[in-house]
Amino acid sequence: MTQHCDVLIKQVKLASMQANGKPYGLIENASVAIKDGKIVGIFTENQRLPTADHNVDGQDQWLLPGFIDCHTHLVYGGSRASEFEQRLLGVSYTDIAKQGGGIRSTVKATRAASQEQLLQSAIARAKRLAAEGVTCIEIKSGYGLDLDTEIKMLKVAKELEQHLDLSVITTYLGAHALPPEFNGKADDYIDFVCNEVMPQIAQQGLASAVDVFCEGIGFSPEQCEKVFVAAQRHGLKIKAHVEQLSDLKGALLAAEFNALSVDHIEYLAEQDVASLKASGTVAVLLPGAFYYLHETKKPPIVALRQHDIPMAVATDLNPGTSPIASILTAMNMASVLFALTPEEALRGATCHAAKALGLQTHKGQIQVGFDADLCLWDIQHPVELVCGINQHRPLKKWYAGRLSTL
Amino acid sequence: MTQHCDVLIKQVKLASMQANGKPYGLIENASVAIKDGKIVGIFTENQRLPTADHNVDGQDQWLLPGFIDCHTHLVYGGSRASEFEQRLLGVSYTDIAKQGGGIRSTVKATRAASQEQLLQSAIARAKRLAAEGVTCIEIKSGYGLDLDTEIKMLKVAKELEQHLDLSVITTYLGAHALPPEFNGKADDYIDFVCNEVMPQIAQQGLASAVDVFCEGIGFSPEQCEKVFVAAQRHGLKIKAHVEQLSDLKGALLAAEFNALSVDHIEYLAEQDVASLKASGTVAVLLPGAFYYLHETKKPPIVALRQHDIPMAVATDLNPGTSPIASILTAMNMASVLFALTPEEALRGATCHAAKALGLQTHKGQIQVGFDADLCLWDIQHPVELVCGINQHRPLKKWYAGRLSTL
Ligand SMILES: [Zn+2]
Ligand SMILES: [Zn+2]
Repeated sequence: MTQHCDVLIKQVKLASMQANGKPYGLIENASVAIKDGKIVGIFTENQRLPTADHNVDGQDQWLLPGFIDCHTHLVYGGSRASEFEQRLLGVSYTDIAKQGGGIRSTVKATRAASQEQLLQSAIARAKRLAAEGVTCIEIKSGYGLDLDTEIKMLKVAKELEQHLDLSVITTYLGAHALPPEFNGKADDYIDFVCNEVMPQIAQQGLASAVDVFCEGIGFSPEQCEKVFVAAQRHGLKIKAHVEQLSDLKGALLAAEFNALSVDHIEYLAEQDVASLKASGTVAVLLPGAFYYLHETKKPPIVALRQHDIPMAVATDLNPGTSPIASILTAMNMASVLFALTPEEALRGATCHAAKALGLQTHKGQIQVGFDADLCLWDIQHPVELVCGINQHRPLKKWYAGRLSTL
Repeated sequence: MTQHCDVLIKQVKLASMQANGKPYGLIENASVAIKDGKIVGIFTENQRLPTADHNVDGQDQWLLPGFIDCHTHLVYGGSRASEFEQRLLGVSYTDIAKQGGGIRSTVKATRAASQEQLLQSAIARAKRLAAEGVTCIEIKSGYGLDLDTEIKMLKVAKELEQHLDLSVITTYLGAHALPPEFNGKADDYIDFVCNEVMPQIAQQGLASAVDVFCEGIGFSPEQCEKVFVAAQRHGLKIKAHVEQLSDLKGALLAAEFNALSVDHIEYLAEQDVASLKASGTVAVLLPGAFYYLHETKKPPIVALRQHDIPMAVATDLNPGTSPIASILTAMNMASVLFALTPEEALRGATCHAAKALGLQTHKGQIQVGFDADLCLWDIQHPVELVCGINQHRPLKKWYAGRLSTL
């Protein structure tokens, strides 16, 4: 046992998110010892406590793992606010598209933005998440679609770690949309993604995974498979936007490739849920996009629960279909719109979100050996974090064992 | 013209919310002079500016009126979080009611809470609103239902003004629910409201208006009418929860009594909308309750628009059916769920919210003679405040002309 530690947080209730058989991984009357950025001890009532440089009186408040937002697109240029207004003023999607709207307008603006401009706007968004207790964010590329801009986006994403107290996991989402220069040549674009861009990104270590948008308005399963094959060749993990608007069996394909996660999955067929079990794939739920798009078809939550598939919850923070800079609101929407229990919603933004990023051995739980990313909350019960909107902010936050300003 | 003022905010874009024929009441290249808590001058490009004790460089950012949340129940005891969890764990409404759940549990907890306990929890909630730029809140009683607790709630509500930079408007909502001691005797309870409680509240100046819950599970139109008659006798204004779950023609009744507002109105019939025009009654939309209750019937927005009925938007912040401490999220939901334009949503939380409280002559617009309740926002356009969730907080806020800490 550690005799001396950096920080000792005494007398807290832990919603540890461990799989200890208790709701929320509850551990009462606990003290948590931190050393060198890691949790080195969890003590309960009668155990002898180590000494510490800093002692914190938890006053019987709740300590939770820092939240993990495992699916965002928060690095982008421009704004789609005027499109939002135009739609509500009665302008049709077709006319907005004709004016160059939609994802193409974001691609144009992201290509035009300097690295510094992208960074400053991304910092503003990431700050909103960090203020809610988020200590780890996944960020996808996919608004550049050419080599330089995709690299620029991923560099900006990583650079956020220098400005904010959070970890950033980056994902190369080349197969997000067809860039204008490849109009009518989707297969050529996929070759470009696999043979031109991905090798560079892998070589420079700019992303740990690839992602695709497998959809009628995105890329076909055959095209996505090419991306997955290339990813495996380059040692990149696999994630996939699948079954958001239709059932193309993208989840089955991703599971064959042992994908970390399949994301959205409103149209995932119940009989295909079991396939996620064998591959250890996480189901990432994105209720924000469901809300903004007025979707009515919900993900197969009951089947996912029955097959014990871990469900993560994320913001999908993006400029068009989910401009939600709030993991707490995403959890609330997962409960209100998808009927997740509050515990499922909270595990969805902690332990299961960690698994969706391949980080389940050191993030997303309060557990000895795990990263000391922790938030102390002034609440009576963890349910309170899920049932309301904009009601709570952390009292204190530690990132990698250091107290973080809020 | 004022020669010298307290504060001069220079070089801003005003979304003034004036009815000046421009979207958002736009005034560009503006400067705003404040003296003794009031707006005393609005200047554009070539006009000579007054001198000031404090000059603020607005840097061409957007200045908006402070937001007004014109419908809340934010003073209450206890928590309904465990009910939220139970419902998602599959416990039926009936079983929750049998366990004393629902509004009755809040009544019990509010009666049991000390004035200080109520105050502290209300401060925490009101702070969340204030941090978003809210400078005026309406707060209803209605969780006491007996004389002492209703008075306690209204006193706590008013006391918030001593702790936070905002105005509080109080409303006596005796006819909210039937308290257990009047089981089976709703008419007797209405007599108690009109003859025992209301006179005291009016005499002590604890509320400026009354409110009712006109609904099958609330009170009948006949019972509500008795409350309105008593309110008129006591010089109290009238507001009403009507047509939330069914069409009892409560809005028609309220309009006959020249109500300030009719609130919820999902089930308001299109042919009844015109009646609100003559009485100058505001339609208060509460999309948070719609969201939490999974309602599908929307208020008659198109008819309200056609008849030029002012539409306000509010949080309905309460422990059960709308635990949303965010006027910005309420505006977003009004656009996403009810298809309000962003301008309608923003007017709904400024000029029209003021009218719903009878404050339209001095709050809710940036206009000479109006209260200097103002927020400066780092945005490209006001639409940005509506289209996302949790994306923005004011850069600076003035309440009654004084810079407020954020
Ligand atoms: Zn996405
Ligand atoms: Zn209400």
